[in-house]
Amino acid sequence: MDSILCLLLESWKNTEGNVNSTESIIDWIQEKNETTEVKIKEDSINDSTFWFYDDYNGEILNRKRSFFSIKGIRLFENEKFVKEQPIIYQPEIGYLGIICKKIDGVLNFLMQAKIEPGNVNCVQISPTIQATKSNFTRAHGGKLPLYFEYFESSSKYKIIYDQIQSEQASRFYKKRNRNIIIIVDEEIPIYDNFKWMTLGQIKQLMKIDNIVNMDTRTVLSGIPYIMQPTSDAVLPNIKKLFTSEAFYNSIFEADCSQTIPRVYNAINNYKMFHDVMTVETPLNQLTDWVVDERGITCKNKADFMVKYYDISIEGREVQHWTQPLFKATGEALFVLVVTEVDNMLKFVVSLKSEIGSFDKIELGPSIQHEHTVTQAEFDVFENMCYKKLDNPECIWNDVMLSEEGGRFYHEQNRNVIMYIDYKELKDLPDNYFLMDFRSLNYLIQVNNCLNIQLRNLLSLLDI
Amino acid sequence: MDSILCLLLESWKNTEGNVNSTESIIDWIQEKNETTEVKIKEDSINDSTFWFYDDYNGEILNRKRSFFSIKGIRLFENEKFVKEQPIIYQPEIGYLGIICKKIDGVLNFLMQAKIEPGNVNCVQISPTIQATKSNFTRAHGGKLPLYFEYFESSSKYKIIYDQIQSEQASRFYKKRNRNIIIIVDEEIPIYDNFKWMTLGQIKQLMKIDNIVNMDTRTVLSGIPYIMQPTSDAVLPNIKKLFTSEAFYNSIFEADCSQTIPRVYNAINNYKMFHDVMTVETPLNQLTDWVVDERGITCKNKADFMVKYYDISIEGREVQHWTQPLFKATGEALFVLVVTEVDNMLKFVVSLKSEIGSFDKIELGPSIQHEHTVTQAEFDVFENMCYKKLDNPECIWNDVMLSEEGGRFYHEQNRNVIMYIDYKELKDLPDNYFLMDFRSLNYLIQVNNCLNIQLRNLLSLLDI
Repeated sequence: MDSILCLLLESWKNTEGNVNSTESIIDWIQEKNETTEVKIKEDSINDSTFWFYDDYNGEILNRKRSFFSIKGIRLFENEKFVKEQPIIYQPEIGYLGIICKKIDGVLNFLMQAKIEPGNVNCVQISPTIQATKSNFTRAHGGKLPLYFEYFESSSKYKIIYDQIQSEQASRFYKKRNRNIIIIVDEEIPIYDNFKWMTLGQIKQLMKIDNIVNMDTRTVLSGIPYIMQPTSDAVLPNIKKLFTSEAFYNSIFEADCSQTIPRVYNAINNYKMFHDVMTVETPLNQLTDWVVDERGITCKNKADFMVKYYDISIEGREVQHWTQPLFKATGEALFVLVVTEVDNMLKFVVSLKSEIGSFDKIELGPSIQHEHTVTQAEFDVFENMCYKKLDNPECIWNDVMLSEEGGRFYHEQNRNVIMYIDYKELKDLPDNYFLMDFRSLNYLIQVNNCLNIQLRNLLSLLDI
Repeated sequence: MDSILCLLLESWKNTEGNVNSTESIIDWIQEKNETTEVKIKEDSINDSTFWFYDDYNGEILNRKRSFFSIKGIRLFENEKFVKEQPIIYQPEIGYLGIICKKIDGVLNFLMQAKIEPGNVNCVQISPTIQATKSNFTRAHGGKLPLYFEYFESSSKYKIIYDQIQSEQASRFYKKRNRNIIIIVDEEIPIYDNFKWMTLGQIKQLMKIDNIVNMDTRTVLSGIPYIMQPTSDAVLPNIKKLFTSEAFYNSIFEADCSQTIPRVYNAINNYKMFHDVMTVETPLNQLTDWVVDERGITCKNKADFMVKYYDISIEGREVQHWTQPLFKATGEALFVLVVTEVDNMLKFVVSLKSEIGSFDKIELGPSIQHEHTVTQAEFDVFENMCYKKLDNPECIWNDVMLSEEGGRFYHEQNRNVIMYIDYKELKDLPDNYFLMDFRSLNYLIQVNNCLNIQLRNLLSLLDI
């Protein structure tokens, strides 16, 4: 039981930790939150010396062209206009990386207490490194991100997972970040703001609102459990680690050969036959959006607006800057429905095409609804799920979790894992699929198959 | 032993066939070649009533904007110009599909004797369907391709494989076709030009120069062998089907958890740090290429030229048309090196970035050399491989195979599978990787990981 697979599973099973106790981690985050003050207030872009609105090109950008820019985008289907919105352009690929290390026989993950200006609280648990290309190429001078050298030379270490994955395609245009997990055997310096914790501890912390950030969740969702050969001799030991035999079966006994081609069949039908086109459009040509010195606002109901913020973070050192953030106008609902078929967990996923999707479409969770979606738009399955939201017997997880506080202002969304009896799922509408965990874990090893909402819901599961 | 996996493996093992003998298939193709005459001669575009050269946009296209167009493209690395060339634009996704059926207990593949104007011989063995979107949307009227209805409603059948895969990225800009294999249980009409054959028979035919076309090879390379759970009880029966235990081990005993993240690490380093950009350029602005009424020719050494052809196919019905084709100026060499490590086959693959790659880079074979590559450019490993080309003891396969005769004129390339002792591979240069078949088969289930040269070499392997 000393393979990497077993180390990962044992760390998942370990909810108490062997380096830092879960209580001490919660205290640490709380203390960071108390001693750090983020002052953030809406501002006019005219007060920024760095960001500006280019009215000629209809684009929000900064004087170094670093980090990101905001442009308009229009979506056409079958050559007919469908919708328009501002969207974040950030074509660079950043790092979201976690260092692991076996400490006293237990695999620990090196996590960071990281401040992001847009967080509802200020500090959340983040990956070891979370750096845009502008950060690590030092577009603005300054120091390299801590631990960058481990990721820069990641091929020297044991790589558990390394994949370029999509982010929120309703806000980002084809944005991808590199999700990477490495195991380092050598001694590692532990800087302030960093702590070791087990996978099980991080999963426990995910049950608390807004403690574990989005970037942590997407990285952990990629841990591969299905790539090592598992002989009949090893499996019983693995099985013992699982509370639910049905979950174990969903990982180690599932047959992907039916599920994966079936899902790709639907994805490929969409890519082949669906005539979807997006066109970059100057912000000042969007007909339903108003651009002024405070930001960009929709004349109608919209899921977000763009605002400029004046931000200062006070802790050991004072930092002060201005930047635009996407401000949510409400809370979205992401639901992953789980069921059990023949003693095997199956997950209800759906095809999700979004305006900024890298290759037109990805797999999303059972429900991914912005707050502006109305009941009139629900299908039978969605109606059923909404009714069960208040039924505690169905609910495995129900937690408010934040989107990336470096781009989004106070955006927290409701993440729900809901169990529904298979009898009630017999007549799933066409664009839903029942998938075992093995197939999902297979596809997550590959870029741009599972969207970030689905990946992040999967990261909440307990062993 | 009645799972789909076993059916596939048994069909692979079956080199004699149970519906049509291999000899009768060879005779059939030969007879088709004798009774069909393709007259193809170079022509001036001025003689075409359908294709034309648009000198304003610098583009070759047809009056319906169907099938494809030819534009110029320039490649920049780190904002410096690297190279330029004409390239085929065909953003639609076409079908390359094969219908399988269990006949008297043996899985047979329904293959077509298909004429393509650019083939060195005229008729080759093709998938059941090979249709561009212009074909099946009947852009030019006419009938639907035969068997189209099975693929249009493929979700009704058992889908073995369904993936959108890249084509030659040195000639096509981000071109992808949908590779699909379905099992149909119902009675199927067998039209003239179609015959059932086993997977093993098709593999035998691949040993003969230019009998099995490119499209067949890419589709068959995608057959999944690793997605069904294989208990210790089933594996011994599977093992018996294999001539080589090392090959069996490479599929069923290999550990992908090291290989796949390691390879993605290199791919992602490239995608993240390599500043590569292509720019669509009017053909008349390419500085090294001359456009005239006969086609497009490079002033310097180049791998291909574009020529216009007047084509007539005489068989049961006479067809006559004109079109541009890419004419190769020589034969390329594609080598897949195989070795054995601890009684397991490993394949040497390399990272291949091409001007038309869908997402910058894919995995290619050990060697993928256009005929214009000179020995001065070889690395140590390539030098070794070239020396062994004449050593029959190393050579598992050495066969001339055609590229797609609908776009390429008389383009045939040398495909070699070469065994090299592992001792000689200890010092592989950095951009080569040793991969087991399991990992390659894992990644082939996913789009745009393995390029067409590598996929097609893998399709040649015997069980």
